[in-house]
Amino acid sequence: MSKKVAIFDSSLRDGAQAEGISFSVEDKLKLLQVLDDHGIDYIEAGNPGSNPKDLEFFARARTIRLKHARLAAFGSTRRRDIKVEQDSNVQSLLLADTPVIVIFGKSWDFHVTDIIRTTLDENLAMIRDTLAFFKAQGKEVIYDAEHFFDGYKNNPEYAVRTLQAAAEGGADALVLCDTNGGTFPSELGAIVGKMAGLFTVPLGIHAHNDCGMAVANSIAAVENGARHVQGTYIGFGERCGNANLSTIIANLGVKRDYECLPADQYRNIVHVARHVAAISNIALNEREPFIGNSAFAHKGGMHIDGVNKASQSFEHINPELVGGQRRFLMSEVSGRRMILDKIWEVDPNITKDDEVTDRIMKRLKEMEHEGYQFEGAESTFELIVRKQLGKYRPFFELEHFKIIGEQPTNGEYGSSAIIKVKVEGVDEITAAEGDGPVHALDSALRKALDTFYPELANVHLTDYKVRVINGRDATAAKVRVLLQSTDGDAVWTTVGVSTDIIEASWIALVDSIEYKLLKLEEAKHAGQA
Amino acid sequence: MSKKVAIFDSSLRDGAQAEGISFSVEDKLKLLQVLDDHGIDYIEAGNPGSNPKDLEFFARARTIRLKHARLAAFGSTRRRDIKVEQDSNVQSLLLADTPVIVIFGKSWDFHVTDIIRTTLDENLAMIRDTLAFFKAQGKEVIYDAEHFFDGYKNNPEYAVRTLQAAAEGGADALVLCDTNGGTFPSELGAIVGKMAGLFTVPLGIHAHNDCGMAVANSIAAVENGARHVQGTYIGFGERCGNANLSTIIANLGVKRDYECLPADQYRNIVHVARHVAAISNIALNEREPFIGNSAFAHKGGMHIDGVNKASQSFEHINPELVGGQRRFLMSEVSGRRMILDKIWEVDPNITKDDEVTDRIMKRLKEMEHEGYQFEGAESTFELIVRKQLGKYRPFFELEHFKIIGEQPTNGEYGSSAIIKVKVEGVDEITAAEGDGPVHALDSALRKALDTFYPELANVHLTDYKVRVINGRDATAAKVRVLLQSTDGDAVWTTVGVSTDIIEASWIALVDSIEYKLLKLEEAKHAGQA
Repeated sequence: MSKKVAIFDSSLRDGAQAEGISFSVEDKLKLLQVLDDHGIDYIEAGNPGSNPKDLEFFARARTIRLKHARLAAFGSTRRRDIKVEQDSNVQSLLLADTPVIVIFGKSWDFHVTDIIRTTLDENLAMIRDTLAFFKAQGKEVIYDAEHFFDGYKNNPEYAVRTLQAAAEGGADALVLCDTNGGTFPSELGAIVGKMAGLFTVPLGIHAHNDCGMAVANSIAAVENGARHVQGTYIGFGERCGNANLSTIIANLGVKRDYECLPADQYRNIVHVARHVAAISNIALNEREPFIGNSAFAHKGGMHIDGVNKASQSFEHINPELVGGQRRFLMSEVSGRRMILDKIWEVDPNITKDDEVTDRIMKRLKEMEHEGYQFEGAESTFELIVRKQLGKYRPFFELEHFKIIGEQPTNGEYGSSAIIKVKVEGVDEITAAEGDGPVHALDSALRKALDTFYPELANVHLTDYKVRVINGRDATAAKVRVLLQSTDGDAVWTTVGVSTDIIEASWIALVDSIEYKLLKLEEAKHAGQA
Repeated sequence: MSKKVAIFDSSLRDGAQAEGISFSVEDKLKLLQVLDDHGIDYIEAGNPGSNPKDLEFFARARTIRLKHARLAAFGSTRRRDIKVEQDSNVQSLLLADTPVIVIFGKSWDFHVTDIIRTTLDENLAMIRDTLAFFKAQGKEVIYDAEHFFDGYKNNPEYAVRTLQAAAEGGADALVLCDTNGGTFPSELGAIVGKMAGLFTVPLGIHAHNDCGMAVANSIAAVENGARHVQGTYIGFGERCGNANLSTIIANLGVKRDYECLPADQYRNIVHVARHVAAISNIALNEREPFIGNSAFAHKGGMHIDGVNKASQSFEHINPELVGGQRRFLMSEVSGRRMILDKIWEVDPNITKDDEVTDRIMKRLKEMEHEGYQFEGAESTFELIVRKQLGKYRPFFELEHFKIIGEQPTNGEYGSSAIIKVKVEGVDEITAAEGDGPVHALDSALRKALDTFYPELANVHLTDYKVRVINGRDATAAKVRVLLQSTDGDAVWTTVGVSTDIIEASWIALVDSIEYKLLKLEEAKHAGQA
């Protein structure tokens, strides 16, 4: 049997149903490119029937040339008792204009009779008709058998008939879904094995993590014949999330000999996971297998001793295979290759043996030691590289600022800020109020710079994250502030670290504005050239 | 075969090897009581040989009368080529004076020859001797076969001989460890099944989560005959963590008919997990199965519709069975029973039908809507209840405070605070500097209150956490601040929410100080009575 396992990412569709996840169209386009660059086979990016905004995304996605991935839109079988072509959801799916269509239908008799309230036969017709319609349109059609395992346990004969209907409709893959996440690997593996004996159409698995076993269930399905795995790259999704694809890919492709990614992509797993987390605006669980910051961190003395004698004594794989790094205690250094990539973006003539390369490494190491972290803050990273390369000039100087927070307050705001900046010898002093000290400072700085750089008018902050680095030092602890900014088109993120939250925010704020001004200057020069 | 599965929690030992975890003796004693109340069978609480500080804990633990759990100390087999009684680790283990001793030994021939560097036969003698020694002391002895699965795959015959040596030494349980977390459930289950055919001594499982399958591995072991499961209650531990016991207990005891806890304790799983997280000072993953805040949260419209028609349509269990709550969108309400428990602590005469009970519920609901969360902030919770019951008086009034943050600064600190408070008609105004605005405010407030309440001198903050609640609003987003305080004996946590981080910190700070003064007043009254 082939060792190729198709990887199907639904971060943009099922993942978007997770609490706390809310993608802009920009976020979705960015994620699409990150996953495509990584070599993911299918990217399911929306449900145009239930979310008309997704059509805007699909329209813009058409302008992007994907290198590897096939784009998929997701929707339901036609509604009961109407013709396929009269169904508005079906029409929306066509409008998405994707090469792949994913149709979900009911396999659990209870859902047919009690939730969508139709007959068992009409449900089979709904599945068959809908798939046949999209096949006739030349689409690759994937069938998601919702609640397949619950359905099979309740009425195995009917569950199998729903798959038969999909196969008759021309399904290119039959994906068995553990929609409620309640199935155990031993029973799931056995059921997949039985289906593999019945069908020649390739089987897939779509697992949810409600029992903490979505990864194990996906692996059990592959061990029993499935060759298509659905999930989300870092595992977010409705309730407890979808199967975590980064874990599954590392398990199948690194620890076993299945083919899930192009061979040179396994060592990007950690980097891609952190990028996906940054775009999705969520914190990656530190202990997440393979990709978490602690995944290869050793603290126990016996373990450190053992790993020093022979790494396999307390490591199940070499961390480098997935782009991770072994860490003892708190030492944390970015990968040399990633840094070189960034240097080359700024100046392709620098070599890895140049003296400046060492200087940049040293500076980054110092900053990481201070609590900086650059994944998801690549604009600050780029500014550091530029500063070391001498390809940077400050756009303004801070003379001073003062922030005042007061309680009780008379007005709407409890905080205000006074700021004085100098641009090319000209002073500007101004003040602003805000919700909290950082909001006031941000407003004052933008106001002060407005006369010099009117292009900043359309820049605004879209996210502000604070992480306490060493909580045990209480209010004197260090904080890391991540700021995300946008000009409505590009999105960039900067980072600042200090024991003082205002200073940390200030550092990130300055980087955000300088980064934007730098990019404007570059664009201007490119235009003149 | 019996359905009783012994649950063995190692949060205080293996869990303490997790990055970011650092328990005080107070924390450990608190966790011990929470887990004992919950009906956990074994609590492994330290490794006195490698960490002499653990002996202080065991001395204090002896003064606590456990209702259900048996306390265990963990240590190695004797060193090579000496007598058991001459081994200092063995002597430390005896000093711990626990009814249960856990001895780990080597099952992987590679570890014997390359890490501890002795002969395969001497290793067998080390296992046998050490267990026999502790059995002769009347201890219950659990044998942890470190790296059992890696060992078995490398040299099955030798791995089995290490178990035989432990059985000959008198082991009460043979625990098969997937120390590196690299084994898949299908192979792990098969190996456990083989061992179950060879040994009459009860088998256990100790799984790590490096492949994201520690829960599935633990379940596979039980399905194949293991009746003792080791892990940590919320899954933290070295690298990617230990098997998550809360997930395993819910899977085995709620979804299957195994006995893991006293029957009335399953509905406390969510509460206990949050309590463990608060004591351990870590954020619970929102999507954690059963216990995470999103575990039973429904966001997708079709899912909400389905759950409203029939809850099993998109829920694999009734959330109430583990003490969880179904949530649609963002509506979040604390359990009524938990609130009544807290009310009864303050006034046992209040009934659930009293008008004041409704008033408290309403107030809590409002505060949760504002972004408050009370798990791990029970002191603020108690103050709210007291305020509604009229059992509260303010210990001071804020006249005003002003915080000033400056850049650049001349001195060490960039922030300073001026504060004026009034206590029983007397004004006090003072100022302080600090690392950041909150540190300055904290210092100034304590200084101002010092003349009135000198008892506050030994109170200090031990943790400060900031969480941004709605990141999308950037610097105008709401923040939730959690403060943990101690007087060297008790530890209490308070919470504040605001769009202004200084205001949120102030709210939590005031609660922290008032809570301490309230407890002092109660102690004084109790002394007089």
